[in-house]
Amino acid sequence: MKLYDMTDAPSPRRVRVFLAEKGIDIEKVQVDIMNGENLKPEFLAINPRGVMPTLALDDGSIIDETSAICRYFEETQPQPALYGTGAKEKAAVESWIRQVEGDAFTQAADVLRNSHPIFENRSLPGTNDTPQIGELAKRGTDRLNAFYARLDQQLADNKFIVGDNYTAADITAMCALDFAEFVGVTVPDNLEHIAKWRTKVSSRPSAQA
Amino acid sequence: MKLYDMTDAPSPRRVRVFLAEKGIDIEKVQVDIMNGENLKPEFLAINPRGVMPTLALDDGSIIDETSAICRYFEETQPQPALYGTGAKEKAAVESWIRQVEGDAFTQAADVLRNSHPIFENRSLPGTNDTPQIGELAKRGTDRLNAFYARLDQQLADNKFIVGDNYTAADITAMCALDFAEFVGVTVPDNLEHIAKWRTKVSSRPSAQA
Repeated sequence: MKLYDMTDAPSPRRVRVFLAEKGIDIEKVQVDIMNGENLKPEFLAINPRGVMPTLALDDGSIIDETSAICRYFEETQPQPALYGTGAKEKAAVESWIRQVEGDAFTQAADVLRNSHPIFENRSLPGTNDTPQIGELAKRGTDRLNAFYARLDQQLADNKFIVGDNYTAADITAMCALDFAEFVGVTVPDNLEHIAKWRTKVSSRPSAQA
Repeated sequence: MKLYDMTDAPSPRRVRVFLAEKGIDIEKVQVDIMNGENLKPEFLAINPRGVMPTLALDDGSIIDETSAICRYFEETQPQPALYGTGAKEKAAVESWIRQVEGDAFTQAADVLRNSHPIFENRSLPGTNDTPQIGELAKRGTDRLNAFYARLDQQLADNKFIVGDNYTAADITAMCALDFAEFVGVTVPDNLEHIAKWRTKVSSRPSAQA
């Protein structure tokens, strides 16, 4: 089994942190997205979609999409349960993952991919040429700030994003906020609940994965 | 238990079809999104995010995000398994759901929300004002067409999207394609595998839910 990975990219990081929390160690192969290595024939022969991360199983099949890779490992090694326990907690974890992805992760990606010269004509992941849209960078920044306020409220009453247990929602949010910071949209200093939670999740050994 | 629903909207439809396949019957309350009823104080008191569908549990808590609502029911009533069986199939279902959401559902929404006058200043779901971006409508159309070609290829070798079993990936894709058609981006006639699959999934009684 092999994980096609890129150390500096935010989505592969979600998988690495997830694996570290599970205590799963697998072979990782670096693919240089910034220089378009994921769009070269060698990688497209492995995954025609050219997206990262990609998990190659021993039977030759592949799994892409971050959430699908993580759920594969949740299924093959259920403990510790990172997608929650019981129907209600599982639903809350899924709901928060979706919110973080839609309102933070995607927005940070919009900021980066619609403003940075390296993504000229590559404003969406994958193999299709897509021109940048400057207004999306602005919209992404506004949406991130709105989300920060909502997340801070949630963390006012909860130790982790979904109650008392560290879950994949925390992993997704930690990676999203670090990514947003990298693209220049920092969390306002007055959001103290986020700050406290962030220190907590970032000091886990898995955060270095 | 109550599902806040809107018959004509594509995301609530995903939940209704899912429930119909499970044979689960719950109370549904219509909320008129087109006239902004989801953004009025009465609904915001139930779900401050103003998003549809929203599931209200008997203990007063709510679950929003379509995928979280569906997973709640998958957990409380596992049969028939709509998120797949076994780690590999489950991962494939999740991966295809994500692809359909990202490359079809979201793109159709981008077309509608960035071109239709009723969504002026509401180009993203939820409570924040977001101006329309005309280029997103064009981009959405291009992405949909690229996705149609890929989906047709997948269906050339598979009875349903993930092999022999009807899953939540088929539900998501059926709703996405019908939605795309509604916004004017129809599937090209020459994609015969999609056409065949579509007839099959659309003739299931659940498609009318």
